[in-house]
Amino acid sequence: MMEKLKNTVRKIKLPDPALLELAQARLDNLTKPQGSLGRFEELAKQVVSITGSLSPVINKKAVLVIAGDHGVAEEGISAYPQKVTMQMVLNFLKGGAAINVLARHINAEVQVVDLGVAAEFKPNPKLLDKKVARGTNNIVNGSAMNREQAIRALEAGIEAAERMIENGYNIIATGDMGIGNTTVSSAIASVICKVKVEEVTGTGTGIDQEGFKRKIEIIKTAIQVNNPDPCNGIDVLAKVGGFEIGGIAGVVLGCAAHRIPVVIDGFISSVGALIANTIEPKSSHYVIASHSSVEKGHRVILDYLGLKPLFDFDMRLGEGTGAAIGINITEAAVKILNEMATFNSAGVSEKNE
Amino acid sequence: MMEKLKNTVRKIKLPDPALLELAQARLDNLTKPQGSLGRFEELAKQVVSITGSLSPVINKKAVLVIAGDHGVAEEGISAYPQKVTMQMVLNFLKGGAAINVLARHINAEVQVVDLGVAAEFKPNPKLLDKKVARGTNNIVNGSAMNREQAIRALEAGIEAAERMIENGYNIIATGDMGIGNTTVSSAIASVICKVKVEEVTGTGTGIDQEGFKRKIEIIKTAIQVNNPDPCNGIDVLAKVGGFEIGGIAGVVLGCAAHRIPVVIDGFISSVGALIANTIEPKSSHYVIASHSSVEKGHRVILDYLGLKPLFDFDMRLGEGTGAAIGINITEAAVKILNEMATFNSAGVSEKNE
Repeated sequence: MMEKLKNTVRKIKLPDPALLELAQARLDNLTKPQGSLGRFEELAKQVVSITGSLSPVINKKAVLVIAGDHGVAEEGISAYPQKVTMQMVLNFLKGGAAINVLARHINAEVQVVDLGVAAEFKPNPKLLDKKVARGTNNIVNGSAMNREQAIRALEAGIEAAERMIENGYNIIATGDMGIGNTTVSSAIASVICKVKVEEVTGTGTGIDQEGFKRKIEIIKTAIQVNNPDPCNGIDVLAKVGGFEIGGIAGVVLGCAAHRIPVVIDGFISSVGALIANTIEPKSSHYVIASHSSVEKGHRVILDYLGLKPLFDFDMRLGEGTGAAIGINITEAAVKILNEMATFNSAGVSEKNE
Repeated sequence: MMEKLKNTVRKIKLPDPALLELAQARLDNLTKPQGSLGRFEELAKQVVSITGSLSPVINKKAVLVIAGDHGVAEEGISAYPQKVTMQMVLNFLKGGAAINVLARHINAEVQVVDLGVAAEFKPNPKLLDKKVARGTNNIVNGSAMNREQAIRALEAGIEAAERMIENGYNIIATGDMGIGNTTVSSAIASVICKVKVEEVTGTGTGIDQEGFKRKIEIIKTAIQVNNPDPCNGIDVLAKVGGFEIGGIAGVVLGCAAHRIPVVIDGFISSVGALIANTIEPKSSHYVIASHSSVEKGHRVILDYLGLKPLFDFDMRLGEGTGAAIGINITEAAVKILNEMATFNSAGVSEKNE
């Protein structure tokens, strides 16, 4: 154990900046005023540098929805009961959840990965069983998981990503499901970004004011009890994390190692990218931030990682719903680079001197 | 003449607010925390009220790219020569422009409409010939067009929209092509929104600082020379407008009359919607604002019309490029409403009491 993680991290290199100039030259030669496609042009260049190809291909798309339960749910910090994690996994498998609708819309595969749901599932080709344990321990009383489990969660994420990459998928989005996971995400964000708990805590799926105050107290207690090392991503994950968050961090590391763009969703996914960044900062160059979530901690993390979200739809659902739209926009950006006519080929006059 | 316009305007009613509550009830029953899909939910409700259907269908999509030339181009207010309008129309017909790439990406038809290009084209099934004249007059010296031509431009837009609607298209995006059209758009925005020219004028396709100052002076002169009546959309269009802008206004009116959602692009399209609003304010309820353009006047117009753009990609190209993405997002919103499972059907527990 640990070999997979070590080898993956070792493989992560900085994207190639030399290609950026060539990509810009190509974009400037397309039939449009220079720079007039704004973020589309930036995105296209990012995918060029990630993939190392001036004509990157995005045609096989997947959303990895990673699920896990949280011991801290017993503190009543969520508006929904813990069994909703399991019920929503079944909903994903039946195709009725928001992420299923949006993945069909963008023609992407939904792959559900069980990292630690507190229930057993029947075998299902759409469900990848990578269960580390049936939920984490309650972080108010001690570590969410032990160090070996944290590493296993990270490696499970890497393996899930590699499985898709081996099957030809060339862009991967991350999604999450886990009742209680905004609570642990706020704990992680507060520790790693070194900001007050209040600055990174929101109302999750919709608790009331009293529940919100309680949530903040619980996060503070969990950090105090566990005292995680902010510079050690594995330590933070083990002490105040969650299995699905470790899985998402693993997906980010796996995609970075294989030079595949990874589109993150909202708050929980960004916390996964944050853990990945703490383990290997270069991994963040492979991350595309899709949307800006209603959860206030999300913006703090994106700023910390130097990522600029593509859009803000006032969403706070998770599952990869924002990331699905992010895939679609990234695909469009790449098509612009690959398919547009040049001034020369179209016989269009260039700018006046 | 004028009958078409009058009849169309008469048909425009306010969307049905009664359906909004039913749509909200349906959205609240889907397997997600209430309101957690943010703008997607707002958009779905808007389409319900526009179409009058609780299960609206969006499956046949079109982008109407409306082209026209501008006499004021001879003042050198654009970074590109006038012939680029004609050359870009040919590029649209050959499928090499940004709008072609994005329309293919979202599986929409591109229909080019010649409202007033200063060139002749060979017949082409993808080009609808609605030419009013070969370009407008230079607005620095007098009216862009006469009143009859303004009405003809509006009716041409209505006819173009109706042709698509008769062929089963159930969402229409507007796009523009016309060298010099940010200049006339700024003039229209300044007059109707009653703001200073400086507040609604940008650098268009990319003129330098000297050219920018000149552009502002020319717009001020044009408004002074023509003295358009801000309360009369036809008068403003005739005096300081453009054929493609009249066409876009007509498309908005035509879609509103037929209860079809119309997705507008950036600055120029919003000016079309502004003319439509001045003729019939109820038309704006049928408009979905896609993106927020780099052109500063765009935000002023959207605020004036009470429209909130979906995203901001720092774009300033036109052609309907932002609106194509807007169609795609609207389609996703409608699918969420139509295809997601309910708590009951999926067996998912509802919120804790």
